[in-house]
Amino acid sequence: MTDLAAPPFSTRHIGPSEPEQQRMLEAVGFESVADLVAVAVPESIRIKDRLTLPDAASETEVIAELRAIADSNRVLTSMIGLGYHDTITPAVIRRNLLENPGWYTAYTPYQPEISQGRLEALLNFQTVVTDLTGLAVAGASLLDESTAAAEAMTLARRAGKSKSQVFVVDADALPQTKAVLATRAEPLGITLVEDSLDGELPECFGVLVQYPGASGRLRDFRAVAERAHAAGALVVAAADLLALTLVTAPGELGADIAIGSSQRFGVPFGFGGPHAAYMSVREGLQRQMPGRLVGVSVDADGAPAYRLALQTREQHIRREKATSNICTAQVLLAVIAGMYAVYHGPDGLRRIAARVHRHAAALAECLRRGGVEVVHREFFDTVLARVPGRAAEVVRQAAERGVNVWQADADHVSVACDEKTTAADLERVAAAFGASGPVADLLADEGLDTLPGALTRESGYLTHPVFHSHHSETAMLRYLRRLQDKDIALDRSMIPLGSCTMKLNATTEMEPITWPEFAGIHPYAPTAQAEGYRHLIETLEELLAEVTGYDAVSLQPNAGSQGEFAGLLAIRAYHRDHGDEHRDICLIPASAHGTNAASAVMAGMRVVVVACDAEGNVDLADLDTKIDKHRDQLAAIMVTYPSTHGVFEETITEVCAKVHDAGGQVYVDGANLNALVGLAKPGEFGADVSHLNLHKTFCIPHGGGGPGVGPVAVRGHLAAYLPGHPLRSGSPVGAVSAAPYGSAGILPISWAYIRMMGGDGLAAATEQAILSANYLARRLAPHYPVLYTGRGGLVAHECIVDLRQITKETGVTVDDVAKRLIDYGFHAPTMSFPVAGTLMIEPTESEDLAELDRFVDAMVAIRGEIARVASGDYDRADNPLRNAPHTAEAVAADEWSHPYSRTEAAYPLPSLREGKYWVPVRRIDQAYGDRNLVCSCPPLEAYED
Amino acid sequence: MTDLAAPPFSTRHIGPSEPEQQRMLEAVGFESVADLVAVAVPESIRIKDRLTLPDAASETEVIAELRAIADSNRVLTSMIGLGYHDTITPAVIRRNLLENPGWYTAYTPYQPEISQGRLEALLNFQTVVTDLTGLAVAGASLLDESTAAAEAMTLARRAGKSKSQVFVVDADALPQTKAVLATRAEPLGITLVEDSLDGELPECFGVLVQYPGASGRLRDFRAVAERAHAAGALVVAAADLLALTLVTAPGELGADIAIGSSQRFGVPFGFGGPHAAYMSVREGLQRQMPGRLVGVSVDADGAPAYRLALQTREQHIRREKATSNICTAQVLLAVIAGMYAVYHGPDGLRRIAARVHRHAAALAECLRRGGVEVVHREFFDTVLARVPGRAAEVVRQAAERGVNVWQADADHVSVACDEKTTAADLERVAAAFGASGPVADLLADEGLDTLPGALTRESGYLTHPVFHSHHSETAMLRYLRRLQDKDIALDRSMIPLGSCTMKLNATTEMEPITWPEFAGIHPYAPTAQAEGYRHLIETLEELLAEVTGYDAVSLQPNAGSQGEFAGLLAIRAYHRDHGDEHRDICLIPASAHGTNAASAVMAGMRVVVVACDAEGNVDLADLDTKIDKHRDQLAAIMVTYPSTHGVFEETITEVCAKVHDAGGQVYVDGANLNALVGLAKPGEFGADVSHLNLHKTFCIPHGGGGPGVGPVAVRGHLAAYLPGHPLRSGSPVGAVSAAPYGSAGILPISWAYIRMMGGDGLAAATEQAILSANYLARRLAPHYPVLYTGRGGLVAHECIVDLRQITKETGVTVDDVAKRLIDYGFHAPTMSFPVAGTLMIEPTESEDLAELDRFVDAMVAIRGEIARVASGDYDRADNPLRNAPHTAEAVAADEWSHPYSRTEAAYPLPSLREGKYWVPVRRIDQAYGDRNLVCSCPPLEAYED
Repeated sequence: MTDLAAPPFSTRHIGPSEPEQQRMLEAVGFESVADLVAVAVPESIRIKDRLTLPDAASETEVIAELRAIADSNRVLTSMIGLGYHDTITPAVIRRNLLENPGWYTAYTPYQPEISQGRLEALLNFQTVVTDLTGLAVAGASLLDESTAAAEAMTLARRAGKSKSQVFVVDADALPQTKAVLATRAEPLGITLVEDSLDGELPECFGVLVQYPGASGRLRDFRAVAERAHAAGALVVAAADLLALTLVTAPGELGADIAIGSSQRFGVPFGFGGPHAAYMSVREGLQRQMPGRLVGVSVDADGAPAYRLALQTREQHIRREKATSNICTAQVLLAVIAGMYAVYHGPDGLRRIAARVHRHAAALAECLRRGGVEVVHREFFDTVLARVPGRAAEVVRQAAERGVNVWQADADHVSVACDEKTTAADLERVAAAFGASGPVADLLADEGLDTLPGALTRESGYLTHPVFHSHHSETAMLRYLRRLQDKDIALDRSMIPLGSCTMKLNATTEMEPITWPEFAGIHPYAPTAQAEGYRHLIETLEELLAEVTGYDAVSLQPNAGSQGEFAGLLAIRAYHRDHGDEHRDICLIPASAHGTNAASAVMAGMRVVVVACDAEGNVDLADLDTKIDKHRDQLAAIMVTYPSTHGVFEETITEVCAKVHDAGGQVYVDGANLNALVGLAKPGEFGADVSHLNLHKTFCIPHGGGGPGVGPVAVRGHLAAYLPGHPLRSGSPVGAVSAAPYGSAGILPISWAYIRMMGGDGLAAATEQAILSANYLARRLAPHYPVLYTGRGGLVAHECIVDLRQITKETGVTVDDVAKRLIDYGFHAPTMSFPVAGTLMIEPTESEDLAELDRFVDAMVAIRGEIARVASGDYDRADNPLRNAPHTAEAVAADEWSHPYSRTEAAYPLPSLREGKYWVPVRRIDQAYGDRNLVCSCPPLEAYED
Repeated sequence: MTDLAAPPFSTRHIGPSEPEQQRMLEAVGFESVADLVAVAVPESIRIKDRLTLPDAASETEVIAELRAIADSNRVLTSMIGLGYHDTITPAVIRRNLLENPGWYTAYTPYQPEISQGRLEALLNFQTVVTDLTGLAVAGASLLDESTAAAEAMTLARRAGKSKSQVFVVDADALPQTKAVLATRAEPLGITLVEDSLDGELPECFGVLVQYPGASGRLRDFRAVAERAHAAGALVVAAADLLALTLVTAPGELGADIAIGSSQRFGVPFGFGGPHAAYMSVREGLQRQMPGRLVGVSVDADGAPAYRLALQTREQHIRREKATSNICTAQVLLAVIAGMYAVYHGPDGLRRIAARVHRHAAALAECLRRGGVEVVHREFFDTVLARVPGRAAEVVRQAAERGVNVWQADADHVSVACDEKTTAADLERVAAAFGASGPVADLLADEGLDTLPGALTRESGYLTHPVFHSHHSETAMLRYLRRLQDKDIALDRSMIPLGSCTMKLNATTEMEPITWPEFAGIHPYAPTAQAEGYRHLIETLEELLAEVTGYDAVSLQPNAGSQGEFAGLLAIRAYHRDHGDEHRDICLIPASAHGTNAASAVMAGMRVVVVACDAEGNVDLADLDTKIDKHRDQLAAIMVTYPSTHGVFEETITEVCAKVHDAGGQVYVDGANLNALVGLAKPGEFGADVSHLNLHKTFCIPHGGGGPGVGPVAVRGHLAAYLPGHPLRSGSPVGAVSAAPYGSAGILPISWAYIRMMGGDGLAAATEQAILSANYLARRLAPHYPVLYTGRGGLVAHECIVDLRQITKETGVTVDDVAKRLIDYGFHAPTMSFPVAGTLMIEPTESEDLAELDRFVDAMVAIRGEIARVASGDYDRADNPLRNAPHTAEAVAADEWSHPYSRTEAAYPLPSLREGKYWVPVRRIDQAYGDRNLVCSCPPLEAYED
């Protein structure tokens, strides 16, 4: 009788079945996966034992475990505020967007033709931000409000006229923002000065105003802006989007830059994240903005089409000259926030804001009548009460009544109202102050409203039809479906992006994140109410430490870029603590991802590039030279392993040893950890610190371009230098994110993944990822040169195919192949990274053999098309490659003037006749969009012929 | 300042905004909705006051209320069995199918071209059933195992050679099946005889064998079948699909018909339903089968395509000559069961079954070792223990340990193992028997397996590639997406089906049904564990009674057809109790839905047709004649209100009075209740009984063709004749469904809808539905004759456009228009019901003005195309209407031989260029599929050119 045990989850996660795996091994020329790994992975780094992890749990068991963890969180009504406000995620948006793999498994919209749906959604978000802030251009989201403030600070420094190195922070700024600004300022030589902004401004290059303040105070900052501008400084407003529906836009008060959080537009707390921060800037600053920016361009037929604009600003192009290390955005959350505005429309948002304000006003009046002093006369949603010596007791009394309020200090308590606040909540809070009394009458009294007349919002917003067309649930549902259908995500086909590890995001991993017990916890809720999160975080840190061989892990960095920054800060602090302040040289191989260099600069380091040899490996001779030259200043080396070329470099341990010998620390970029898990541990083969991309190796979905999660892992000697809590002092490094545990709300995903895979499952996944990459390399090699290989001619978990010779001979470019793959129903592999003119392909373990073969069939068919260009059979300028992608509209047009047939255009393989993906636009003109920058919803007339 | 209250849910449910509503009123020629209703709805039936319902709750509040209700259910481990077994719904299937509006909002696949996805999924289900039961043809699901048994009984009577009126039931049949058979048999003059089947068979036309039996006993019924066949009787096997993966198929043992439940293939308990029952039959009986049957045909290009086969058998065609009144199936649940088999494949299913069996065997051995007598030597999953006098105590002990087992009688307890059963569960159960001991060793001992060698399954199953291709989660996810993308559901566009009320199924209504506290309760769980359900059911019955004006409601009927049947049984029983046994004439207007007549026959009544006049109303003169003629035998009249013609008949109260005067009862079919809710109450304007379609008026989604829910509502004098509990005696009528509360698991949907709408919201919805129908009628009237209208030239909630003259003049048929609408992105309206050659359009209140106008634009454009046919501008045989629908493949073909252009074919309106729906097949040849009946997955070669 057969084995009766249920097949482990790993058999669902890993695409190929055992017989399929056998066929792949045959193709690659090995008898077993063990044999393959023995050749592919250098023995010097391989671990001898299995990972010491709990046995793999079933999906049912993991749901039960997470349910128990969730149940040890306690969800109280949160009126803590401080940049996080409770909100109602419309159910239609939760189910059809946040819980829909068509949205959450999509990649960053680098291939705009297959990303029109989420690009439109992001343009909605940008329009919300520009309209509400009254500024010209908004980006497609940043990581959190506090890091957005830090980005605004550096933007102000480089864009402003002042030579000052001082940045002034509103004393009433959010405490976490002050903390992150401090962390960011110090390595860059910026001096932070906290100021009430009530009097003269210190000399500075910029000033940040919180609008309304953390204490609730609503201030007309026109005078501050005038003084700042007079001194050549720029003004950053950290503004609450919901408040802006009622009060004057920061752009109209003189802000040059606005930043803030869009969390309260429908995005749950999640114990601090992920949420989308926003940034908008006045005309003239847009080319200085960090992060992604969606713009409008035209396609090959002249039709409007969306794409990411101004990418030449970004860190992957500008490397150490970049002004920010931001890669990812918070796309999924920005899309939710944008859809929340679409669903409510301007009138709905205004009504929500007015209701929130009325509740705050009623509470204030109720407290005053009860003899409690209310500090500010003018506020939006937050009431600050003075209760000398009683603050802790009031907080306790409120919690006993089921409401969390905030103890600002021993004498003050603040209470923030939100969309969910009810009269009953107010009565409970009032009772906690000893000021009980019914509030119904107060809520009906518009005479209590406290918004200052000078700040009454006059300008309109959200006038675009999209904010007026989808207010019924049916209409909203269809809008979401229509946008989703334009895009390719993992629910349609493989996304073979080298370095990006687009693998399964299993439903069981995803389900818990929208449970109220995880979604509904404020990041500053009392620890006793977040016991579940504490357990989840501690155990996940332990699991990740075991997997990576490090001693300590911090989950605070909410993107890989932030993990890098935190890792380098740890190295920096370590050197300083050891009297090595002068160590500030960071070696980075030429093949590195641009973010590495940008992060090093942000951490106050100087970048020295180490050459690579012809095989793409670190050039040991050049490494020696550079170490010798900078021995005394050597702070660190940053290497990616396996290399960005997708190869297990044999010399990695040697590289580590050389740097250590010179007193440097070794940073291993965890981007390619999917090739190591269960087989090798960076913390054991020579590295001191890594960041991990939980959104790559550990199954957090890419969300269409975020959230990412980038924990930093270190060996014991660096453990003291991990990021600290943003509201607590004590860490030598400080906080790198607004929330203590970053994007805590999505950590159940990685936790579940590791629990369900177990040590053996994780190793099996890595082995399959390596096998699949080698299978693709073998299958493609007869058609395209495979660029870099290691021992035995093997690659690691990805392979690079070289098109440079093909381009030279035929004019067919990497871009042509990438766009032609769309006609075959595929998202293109990574283009021209790390080597221009190549495609980097990473299949991951989750793709089954049929899908891998379907991809190979497409690539081979495309090679055949290229051959026809080469032979002259296809016209060099007018062929299916150059004209790709082909829309249905194009191939069904009455006129067909191309020298190739419609069938060749649309159905080059017969299998495409079943369920073909129809791209919504033709190839997009990137340059046009940058020349004619439009970054908010274009008027409908733009779509008329 | 504006009203600060949050807009009620009704503003999300109702599509048109207030300004849109105003524009629609102008088009219809009224100042206000009240004015419109005053003219449209006869004053004689209008209620004077508002509905007495609790105030409308917000979405957030309703979720909180349902959460509290759910929390008062207690989910124990269920080992009750009796036809319901716990199962693991694969998360990928739950999220992407059961919780996906792309699946659950679809309609019955009457328009096969836009239903290929769910038709393929149903074909998978049918293949699972035919393969596992070893019979030739399976249908696309029935309502529950017990009603399927009843359908099998009547099939056996009409298909067999015996003249006997006796049907023999296995004494070991499920108790609920015995109950439902009794209810069904009596009105039809069938005598039920219960028999052990161990000896000679009584003379009979059919015999039902439970395989395995309710007591767990696994019996080789070959001898029974031989005896039955020798006597000219047919053999029905009620078989467990999971058991069939290990034991000989019923078809191989001699069964002519197999029926059963597919619940344990991934479908949650839901306190009894909805679940998909199955029926399969041997070759030769397929044209006798009740319910839907998916078959394979070809499209206009000769490509294979799926559609519903053999529809001429069905009740909507055969009316009182129909052999079953079944309309709907349990499509959503059948699709889940089919996908469960696709995901696990035959090996996976076999392994699950073997594990279940081993657990049962281990439990039996454990009990024996503990001195407990185990009754049967051979069983699959259920162990029957003899514990003289102790049964109640054992059940109590088990419940204390968290496990429900079943008290068969005072001396016997049965325990059923399932996919979720663990060793710990067995130990708990053993302890309850006082027979504790570790079971790990027993679970490893294959020597304990008790499946008889003679019943070892030899034949293969699920050999089709579809059951071998989607075993990774990624592959499954993509398969679900691919199928979904082929279909039009409410998430794409309106589905303007007259009489079917395809309105919003709001997410907030849907979310609770997959909560474990609702999904995880066995229908026969102790009542103390189902307090939440009790409250939900009682309050929903009260709400529905208030809405309809009736005094009592039963939620047991799990489809409208069953509600009709139950309503007529109540009338029948009432007459009998009043000495009027001879009253057996049921008057039915000529315009009635065919199901009415079929239900009447099933209830033992004779149907007399009443004529309709030229306006489609009941012909009062003919009614008088028929009443006079049958006065003494008059049992009832069945009328639909508003009429099936979509008109508020002015004479309804008169009709009711006439029937009452003659001693008859009035049955008002609730199909069109969406035009009455909040405005009129059938229970007050003259009716005695109605069934309601919760899947129409009360927002339960159609699920692609089921589940339906058809509660029956009666006035006080009929309350005693509502259906009874299937496991309890006492009801004069008996049970009509297997589960006491039918499809209890989806009742939260209707409950939430009524709670969120409140009385005013429900009335507003009805008013908007009437306004929208009249708006469409006005907009379409210049282009198509609108067939029936009432006072003021108004229609009710739907309108009929007449194409007969157009067809006569141009040859363009209703079918052509329906298929052409697909090219415009729409599901066709109801075709040729109630009048051949017409389209019946019901917009519902949920469609906003933009969508209504889009539909009008399409209909007007089609009218223009028809005009071009009429003028000779378009060829009569080769035009866009006749050739519709057009696939992408067709319009992108290299050759285009039609006299109209590709643009005319694919993009007749410019708006179609945005997000066009591409139909996957061309027009399907219905007759071909019936001539060449193929009802399981066709081999892949069928798809080769």
